[in-house]
Amino acid sequence: MTMVPLIDYRDASAEVRAVYDDIMRTRGTDWINNFWKALANDPASLRRTWESIKQVMAPGALDPLTKELVYLAVSASNGCAYCTASHGAAAKKQGMTPQMLAELLAVIGMANETNALANAYRVPVDERFEKLF
Amino acid sequence: MTMVPLIDYRDASAEVRAVYDDIMRTRGTDWINNFWKALANDPASLRRTWESIKQVMAPGALDPLTKELVYLAVSASNGCAYCTASHGAAAKKQGMTPQMLAELLAVIGMANETNALANAYRVPVDERFEKLF
Amino acid sequence: MTMVPLIDYRDASAEVRAVYDDIMRTRGTDWINNFWKALANDPASLRRTWESIKQVMAPGALDPLTKELVYLAVSASNGCAYCTASHGAAAKKQGMTPQMLAELLAVIGMANETNALANAYRVPVDERFEKLF
Amino acid sequence: MTMVPLIDYRDASAEVRAVYDDIMRTRGTDWINNFWKALANDPASLRRTWESIKQVMAPGALDPLTKELVYLAVSASNGCAYCTASHGAAAKKQGMTPQMLAELLAVIGMANETNALANAYRVPVDERFEKLF
Amino acid sequence: MTMVPLIDYRDASAEVRAVYDDIMRTRGTDWINNFWKALANDPASLRRTWESIKQVMAPGALDPLTKELVYLAVSASNGCAYCTASHGAAAKKQGMTPQMLAELLAVIGMANETNALANAYRVPVDERFEKLF
Amino acid sequence: MTMVPLIDYRDASAEVRAVYDDIMRTRGTDWINNFWKALANDPASLRRTWESIKQVMAPGALDPLTKELVYLAVSASNGCAYCTASHGAAAKKQGMTPQMLAELLAVIGMANETNALANAYRVPVDERFEKLF
Repeated sequence: MTMVPLIDYRDASAEVRAVYDDIMRTRGTDWINNFWKALANDPASLRRTWESIKQVMAPGALDPLTKELVYLAVSASNGCAYCTASHGAAAKKQGMTPQMLAELLAVIGMANETNALANAYRVPVDERFEKLF
Repeated sequence: MTMVPLIDYRDASAEVRAVYDDIMRTRGTDWINNFWKALANDPASLRRTWESIKQVMAPGALDPLTKELVYLAVSASNGCAYCTASHGAAAKKQGMTPQMLAELLAVIGMANETNALANAYRVPVDERFEKLF
Repeated sequence: MTMVPLIDYRDASAEVRAVYDDIMRTRGTDWINNFWKALANDPASLRRTWESIKQVMAPGALDPLTKELVYLAVSASNGCAYCTASHGAAAKKQGMTPQMLAELLAVIGMANETNALANAYRVPVDERFEKLF
Repeated sequence: MTMVPLIDYRDASAEVRAVYDDIMRTRGTDWINNFWKALANDPASLRRTWESIKQVMAPGALDPLTKELVYLAVSASNGCAYCTASHGAAAKKQGMTPQMLAELLAVIGMANETNALANAYRVPVDERFEKLF
Repeated sequence: MTMVPLIDYRDASAEVRAVYDDIMRTRGTDWINNFWKALANDPASLRRTWESIKQVMAPGALDPLTKELVYLAVSASNGCAYCTASHGAAAKKQGMTPQMLAELLAVIGMANETNALANAYRVPVDERFEKLF
Repeated sequence: MTMVPLIDYRDASAEVRAVYDDIMRTRGTDWINNFWKALANDPASLRRTWESIKQVMAPGALDPLTKELVYLAVSASNGCAYCTASHGAAAKKQGMTPQMLAELLAVIGMANETNALANAYRVPVDERFEKLF
């Protein structure tokens, strides 16, 4: 079903295993999800993508739960079933409750509705919105 | 430039003014942005869309800043320039700092990259992700 | 601003002029809009695209106004500003009133909202919907 | 497979049943499709979304079949499998024939092609298209 | 599972068979994939779409492998599972190696990330980029 | 017009200048385009995004022109005006001729048309396409 074989830990090269180990250590888990097993067909992509995600999702001015909610929102809005499932699980692990999920989905729905309306009406940006910072 | 005339307060019907008044009261502002002035060409759409936004964006299990960050993320990811500008301003009003904006944009960027990769590799959803709640 | 020069009738080759003439004759107009002037840089694409549009938009089981409303809806939903403007004008020429436009935009908005929600909730297709014809 | 449990009528609260009853009464059916069963996890979203759909899809300047064709077109263009299936069924119930479906899909296909071309060529909007109403 | 029946060669009209024959002859294959079997419900769409694809994908200034890589990239980026699978197979037949696929997917991923960032930051186009040819 | 100030070389920190210098050295240019000037508001994002692009776009199994054509195709298909302009310029610098651009755009157009059709018809993936490598 995938475009490439999924590479399990036991079949992985040392280079790939090093990334898998870092993923499990960083996340406190003992398994690797399919996204990384697909990317592992190209070890350079695997490493680059993981290093980027690790940097971007680390705590900062935004806390990890907020970051996961945003990741889930973008993924769901884009209709990426895999990412919706995996970041849904990640957000839940970070503390997302069913009520938070429900409100998140409502915001995603409204944003998609008004994005379509603003584009469809071709609304010009208000002068007051132009200078953000 | 828009598909319809923008209806200013002074030219609006009583029905439209009632919605405009509620928008300004709820937001604590003294002006109406162009999105609503376009929607006002169809008072039923204006009222329905505003009532929905008001409900969805009210404080709940998610706080108003988180909701605005999510709204901005979806709008930016969808490439809606108007909504990116208007919800960028709204998020800033709710307390979004330049550092929070930078981290938010980084998450949006990574989400779009991995959404494309997951779709492109046609990665199957892991069994463990299937049961969320 | 465009990726290619816009080719005016007076500068066009005989091959391009033949398509331009057919566009104006079919539409009952005396000018060519920019979309075709861009495509004219590749006469084969110009001819193929115009022939396809002419076939697809001809009256059939769906009348020309319905076809234009659908074209406008897809274009607006996709956020294509050029196509929203040009098919908005075409739909108006076919009889779209301001009230029809308002209702059309409301449907586009709701469709985008519920599309996002159905994807976000990962709703499985009901058995009863599977056999359409 | 979904992000939330699907709530059947027999397990629903009185608040949810009231919406389910209105859906079945309005549509003249005796069952509830999965979209609403997912939304029912958040009764406020269920009610708001249903009330909006009911208003937007009611007969007006556009007849119900045209509205369903537009809804189907946007959903299919957005690649929402659930909405394509459900609004395909709804359009058929409103009278869409196989020939109408074929023509609708052809328009959707052409719109997506020319939307991509107009964006790719970065075609500027013609002055004549700017003033729609 | 599809919106229409899939029409096999043995059940096809002479008009449809003529297109099927041309597809197999052009591609040097002895079978028809499901996309065409769905389109065959509307012989005019089948013929028009096939003729367009045949023209567009013929060798020209770009070689067939490059064209298939681009087709695959757009399809994967759009999240079209069917087209990703079918054009993945077509690209492989034209000579795409696993390493080429890996690099192609990495480019698709980066393009989607930076597209989102450019839209999210609302970056203005540099004057120097405006005049392409 | 942008969400953040654009940071010119003369106003940049040493950390940002180091990335700017590497961009100019790698590309053999003497100026920085606006995309990087926006990202420079978040030096970590600037560095990470540039390092990723540099790796992904380096010559490999795919040559630099093919990579730029794919980047341009995805950007144009996504409707990202900035990226279409900047990667159009980059592709031209790598050797893309007007005829190559015309053919590229035709492939993008057809891919978007058939992606929409495959989704709209909900065509099931052929068994023969499932095992790619």
